[in-house]
Amino acid sequence: MNCILLPAANFSKNSAHINAAAQIAHINQVLGAKVGDTLRIGQLEGNLGNAIIADIAPERILLDEVNLTTAPPPKLNLTLVLALPRPKVLRRLIMDMTALGVRDIILINSYRTQKSYWQSPMLSRLDEFVLEGLQQGVDTVAPRISLQKRFKPFVEDKLAQLITNRAIVAHPYGALSFSQYIQQQLESSESSHRSLLPSMVFIGAEGGWIDYEIELLTTQGCQTVHIGARILRTESAVNAILGQWLL
Amino acid sequence: MNCILLPAANFSKNSAHINAAAQIAHINQVLGAKVGDTLRIGQLEGNLGNAIIADIAPERILLDEVNLTTAPPPKLNLTLVLALPRPKVLRRLIMDMTALGVRDIILINSYRTQKSYWQSPMLSRLDEFVLEGLQQGVDTVAPRISLQKRFKPFVEDKLAQLITNRAIVAHPYGALSFSQYIQQQLESSESSHRSLLPSMVFIGAEGGWIDYEIELLTTQGCQTVHIGARILRTESAVNAILGQWLL
Repeated sequence: MNCILLPAANFSKNSAHINAAAQIAHINQVLGAKVGDTLRIGQLEGNLGNAIIADIAPERILLDEVNLTTAPPPKLNLTLVLALPRPKVLRRLIMDMTALGVRDIILINSYRTQKSYWQSPMLSRLDEFVLEGLQQGVDTVAPRISLQKRFKPFVEDKLAQLITNRAIVAHPYGALSFSQYIQQQLESSESSHRSLLPSMVFIGAEGGWIDYEIELLTTQGCQTVHIGARILRTESAVNAILGQWLL
Repeated sequence: MNCILLPAANFSKNSAHINAAAQIAHINQVLGAKVGDTLRIGQLEGNLGNAIIADIAPERILLDEVNLTTAPPPKLNLTLVLALPRPKVLRRLIMDMTALGVRDIILINSYRTQKSYWQSPMLSRLDEFVLEGLQQGVDTVAPRISLQKRFKPFVEDKLAQLITNRAIVAHPYGALSFSQYIQQQLESSESSHRSLLPSMVFIGAEGGWIDYEIELLTTQGCQTVHIGARILRTESAVNAILGQWLL
């Protein structure tokens, strides 16, 4: 937790209160903060800043001199479409995609996604994981997350409208590597590396996409792109690919 | 496990045997493989290939028609110096750095590394995590891992000899961003993006490096480089930075 994010309702004039158990525990146990200390805070969907701890009670911490003047960092112009992963890794994946600033996350069904994943109680906790990611990455604006339980109707009926720019699919048998893909874009344009990054990336579950899924995606204009001979865990692949968007 | 790696001692002529419990469990429970099926295998420090399952017993699987003709993928020309992380994340970090092909890993002490981390039993299990990473990334060549429990003597006395090319330190207050750094290298050279990547990267523990550490590193020729306003978990940062080395 590199900042404490509070909903607008927790603010009034120059003060605010913290009543979420996880945040109170963090302030007491990790930060070991005392009355008079400065906290890095933010308002959900609002600005970042700081405040002074005015009072610490077991179930409520009061803040004074609230000062929220820093705008959150810009979001990445990116929709990440991820085959719904194992529930065990879902928390960290949502946290990381959020901390890295992905604007839109679409969790989609795929042939290699086990049906049981859609019944996981973890799926009802996405807001919690997003909050963790925002507090990690020091941002206030949640990514939009949508769940698409049916691959074919999504790809055939909705995808085309969502592709605002280039779309790529991570696929070990992609025709181009990611850097060849960027190189190709560079050669056909006057723009810089960053502006040539795709606005949509599909990343598969463990085992990747099946041929039928790849066919459907390429028919809709997605380009398959590989990232080398090495097979990465989903978490590692997502972070490594998002690394291309780092400053 | 995207391949099963065996030590040289487990091979004889065209056959081989598997006796590690984790590999046997994987073959039976995850792959559900039967006698006659083909397995993707490799010899540690040797080639990759495949073999046919000849017999399955509870504590030993026999392989026939062993065919090892594919060289492992090249290692990244990179030494990753990582402040020893929390034991809880050490396994995944070693796995990911290994799967991504880092040649040298140095786990180093830092001001923000808790002393207790050096006592963790996880440190005696590095070989196991490396094997997991190799079997994930489909490689046979283990990274070299060294432990440096004292920061200052390492940086002052050993670092200079280890820097074969450029060295960078990930630091939120770095003078340049990673992409500005690469851009600067590009402008002063005729080489391509990939050949300008540094050969050594320092990544801090949670909380990063302290000023004293940064000073010592820059004195030895390391360039501080930031990766944007967002603060990432160590795992996310390592994978996102290593993403720059992806094909």
